Amino acid sequence: MSEVSLARYFDHNATSPMRDVVRQVLEHALDEAWSNPSSPHASGVRCRALLEDARERMASLTGSSPERLAFTSGATEGNNAVLAHFREKLGSHGRVAISPVEHPSVLEAAKARFGQGVFELPVDLNGMISLDALSDALSEANPGLVSVMAANNETGVLQPWRETQTLCSEARIPFHCDVTQWLGRMPGEALESCDYLTGSFHKLGGPKGVGFFRTSGEESVRLLIGGGQEGGLRAGTENVPSILAAVSAVEEANSEVPDSTGRDDFEKRLRELIPEAQVLGGKAERLPNVSSLILPVFENLRWVNRLDRLGFAVSTGSSCSTGKDGLSHVLAAMGRFPEEARRVIRVSGGWSNGSGDWFDLADALGAVFEELKLDEGNSQVISL
Amino acid sequence: MSEVSLARYFDHNATSPMRDVVRQVLEHALDEAWSNPSSPHASGVRCRALLEDARERMASLTGSSPERLAFTSGATEGNNAVLAHFREKLGSHGRVAISPVEHPSVLEAAKARFGQGVFELPVDLNGMISLDALSDALSEANPGLVSVMAANNETGVLQPWRETQTLCSEARIPFHCDVTQWLGRMPGEALESCDYLTGSFHKLGGPKGVGFFRTSGEESVRLLIGGGQEGGLRAGTENVPSILAAVSAVEEANSEVPDSTGRDDFEKRLRELIPEAQVLGGKAERLPNVSSLILPVFENLRWVNRLDRLGFAVSTGSSCSTGKDGLSHVLAAMGRFPEEARRVIRVSGGWSNGSGDWFDLADALGAVFEELKLDEGNSQVISL
Repeated sequence: MSEVSLARYFDHNATSPMRDVVRQVLEHALDEAWSNPSSPHASGVRCRALLEDARERMASLTGSSPERLAFTSGATEGNNAVLAHFREKLGSHGRVAISPVEHPSVLEAAKARFGQGVFELPVDLNGMISLDALSDALSEANPGLVSVMAANNETGVLQPWRETQTLCSEARIPFHCDVTQWLGRMPGEALESCDYLTGSFHKLGGPKGVGFFRTSGEESVRLLIGGGQEGGLRAGTENVPSILAAVSAVEEANSEVPDSTGRDDFEKRLRELIPEAQVLGGKAERLPNVSSLILPVFENLRWVNRLDRLGFAVSTGSSCSTGKDGLSHVLAAMGRFPEEARRVIRVSGGWSNGSGDWFDLADALGAVFEELKLDEGNSQVISL
Repeated sequence: MSEVSLARYFDHNATSPMRDVVRQVLEHALDEAWSNPSSPHASGVRCRALLEDARERMASLTGSSPERLAFTSGATEGNNAVLAHFREKLGSHGRVAISPVEHPSVLEAAKARFGQGVFELPVDLNGMISLDALSDALSEANPGLVSVMAANNETGVLQPWRETQTLCSEARIPFHCDVTQWLGRMPGEALESCDYLTGSFHKLGGPKGVGFFRTSGEESVRLLIGGGQEGGLRAGTENVPSILAAVSAVEEANSEVPDSTGRDDFEKRLRELIPEAQVLGGKAERLPNVSSLILPVFENLRWVNRLDRLGFAVSTGSSCSTGKDGLSHVLAAMGRFPEEARRVIRVSGGWSNGSGDWFDLADALGAVFEELKLDEGNSQVISL
């Protein structure tokens, strides 16, 4: 089986291929910065300096001081760490308010640790939380933490996280924002205001197996303990080569201006070819790289497989939900039916796609539509 | 500052440089196996197959079935996961029996989760647990888990973990063995018997940021949740390139016959050059790559710095303890005094060192000894 062409890979919300410049940083670090930064010899001391330089750069990219930022193994670890920290802080009767469209590593971690203490904020048909409902929840539900993601992984829909932070600050309730899908695709400066941030690097052209969390000033999050690494925030030998590559990925991604032209032209072209296709969250503010489609007929895996034959890689929704029975929790919260969810494909571009690739993908979807209709017709003829 | 020569790098217990064959596997995987193994397209499906193949190979290397093995971000995560699992299982009055020379990620995680419920097994002057005391503890202290490492990171001293497993099996108490320092240096087959295993790959020439745990058949360890990855044992996008490289590192390491000749000749030569030097655990069974020395005079950092100038990288003990005030918990458990601990250096070789390199290191230590004595003499003259 031949590998997918990077230009035709449209599953960046699941993971991205590594950017060339990131690969160069990684290769150089594997040669030169592989020592343990806790070792006392010159090679270790040099790695320590490179690690702390990377931390300062990442802190600057997310608007915080370096001592509040720890590198982790990914967003899942960060989200679990934040929820575990608040469970310990708030005790068994603590309450958290979260959106029902959070990533499973927030949603399931919250439910596992807070059970009945989880308050789910209502969302509209685009999956956006209601700020009025949030205000009510802050004054009535008495949460010890609010957790709302910056951008949804399945639909790309943006949450009003700036306003959420403002309301939380006024109510003196800590706010956690999972910025995994936002990072490197939207401006980073504004993230400064959030009390807690979590994210990873492998969806923006960085390496896998590395992420970060950023705490509020006073708090010490400790999920992995035993070893004084990361200023006591996260134990475990630091993966310096991947961390250096990760930070370079954000810097490279942030140097690009967010541009939805390719995606918008794709959707326009698609409306011509498959007028009945619906765009999930199409009326809401979205990430510039995502188009989550409900196709008019045929199960999504048939589309995925046909697109594969044409060299295009797309997804059936969140890769974390793929393969599980039942409806995605995101689509359920948006009031969609299981029958619709079976016709969803998620297209998510990234650094590897040009606007021509988006256009080719629209044409490929049109061609697959014709193929599937033809096959369906033929099989009906045969079955007569 | 020039980078350390691999031949003169003697800090493999902290971390190893990546083996050439591992680097090749990693580079190939970064080109060809970077998709998300949960994605439904052909590229994702291919990554899934490679991941499951790696899991089968790693399961075979540790004598278990693949569904019991999950890849993690490292041994620290695995150790924390095992302790967290038993805290949940045993409840707040649960008890665990551990050796006092465990890695901090076992020791501190146990204390954080079990508090007064931690029973520390007595050790002898080599840091080895007493099997008689273990027998007593199993019948009297009523532990719900026993955790004893295979080989100590600071001294290389081996624990009687096979006998520990036998005693635990007879008492029907689960046994956890941290094999981080054992893996790739000693035969792996025997590990089959252990109920729980944890380890990492970066001390044997594999990549950093990846490790594993292996559960007993019935148990489900869940520290990171939210996402169905790793058969539900560990959430988070799998770092397939690093996992493929990691397993190849163990395979490569296991193809080499454990050989202590270089280290033994080093210690013999050192006794000629610095007769007053003591080898920690020198009378016990040890890993073939470690020599932990109490030098007769001068603080260990002075030795480390002088050796650095001669191109050799050694450590002052565990890198996890380095820089902290006070005595290493391992040396304290072995009945050593803080005054001695300040004169400890840990030499740990690996795949990058030949027997000639060990010999050169002994000579370098001898030369540094003469230098330091001379300096001391001169500075005494000056200070008069």
